[in-house]
Amino acid sequence: MKLVNLDHVAVAVRDLDAALAGYRDRYGVQPLYREIVAAQGVEEAMIPLGGSFLQLLQALDDDTPVGRFVAKHGEGLHHVAFTVPDIDAALDHLRGQGARLVDVYPRTGGRGSRIAFVHPGDLTGTLIELVEPVNE
Amino acid sequence: MKLVNLDHVAVAVRDLDAALAGYRDRYGVQPLYREIVAAQGVEEAMIPLGGSFLQLLQALDDDTPVGRFVAKHGEGLHHVAFTVPDIDAALDHLRGQGARLVDVYPRTGGRGSRIAFVHPGDLTGTLIELVEPVNE
Repeated sequence: MKLVNLDHVAVAVRDLDAALAGYRDRYGVQPLYREIVAAQGVEEAMIPLGGSFLQLLQALDDDTPVGRFVAKHGEGLHHVAFTVPDIDAALDHLRGQGARLVDVYPRTGGRGSRIAFVHPGDLTGTLIELVEPVNE
Repeated sequence: MKLVNLDHVAVAVRDLDAALAGYRDRYGVQPLYREIVAAQGVEEAMIPLGGSFLQLLQALDDDTPVGRFVAKHGEGLHHVAFTVPDIDAALDHLRGQGARLVDVYPRTGGRGSRIAFVHPGDLTGTLIELVEPVNE
């Protein structure tokens, strides 16, 4: 098990259009793509920054994880995602370590990637997403 | 003004040694270096991940920004840092935009870089650090 990249850092926002306009005007950056990921209850925009992305997340509904996060905390940093070459092996390792997982088995993320979340109560109060990218 | 890289994502922790042991055991990653940055009241460890870093921050004292953050929120995601080629030009641009800045002028960050923070109240509730790396 070894993380190979910082895939993205995710920010929960109330209004994706307004947030994208802000990053464009303040910082000169634009999303590579936007996508509705219904399984996670979000619309996400991915802004490329070197080898990583800034991901902006807007909840599709108040009764979703991101909707509840924004209701409780307001907009802000939500999670960090690391790339792993083999997410099944990574989850095996974490289960063996006794890690507190949100997803015991992988599920489908944006653009067909395989993802899993590790609970913020596991390490440094941080919601961590593991991403096995699709071979393209 | 255009961001060129996601330099690092920073996590505030209570115990840097314990956090580093956790990332080593769970995720197989190790810091490239550790450094006390007295001007910011932190000891920081930088874990390389592709072209970015995971930065772990432990407050040197309770009465520091990171110490107060941990007392209020617990451990967790603290800020995200983006690389800019010219921090003076970036801050000029942000002032022209009416952005809410923590640092109106650059100060010295880790390894002699020039840095400035943008207030989380400016955009998407996110504390943003701009980093102009040292030419090495």
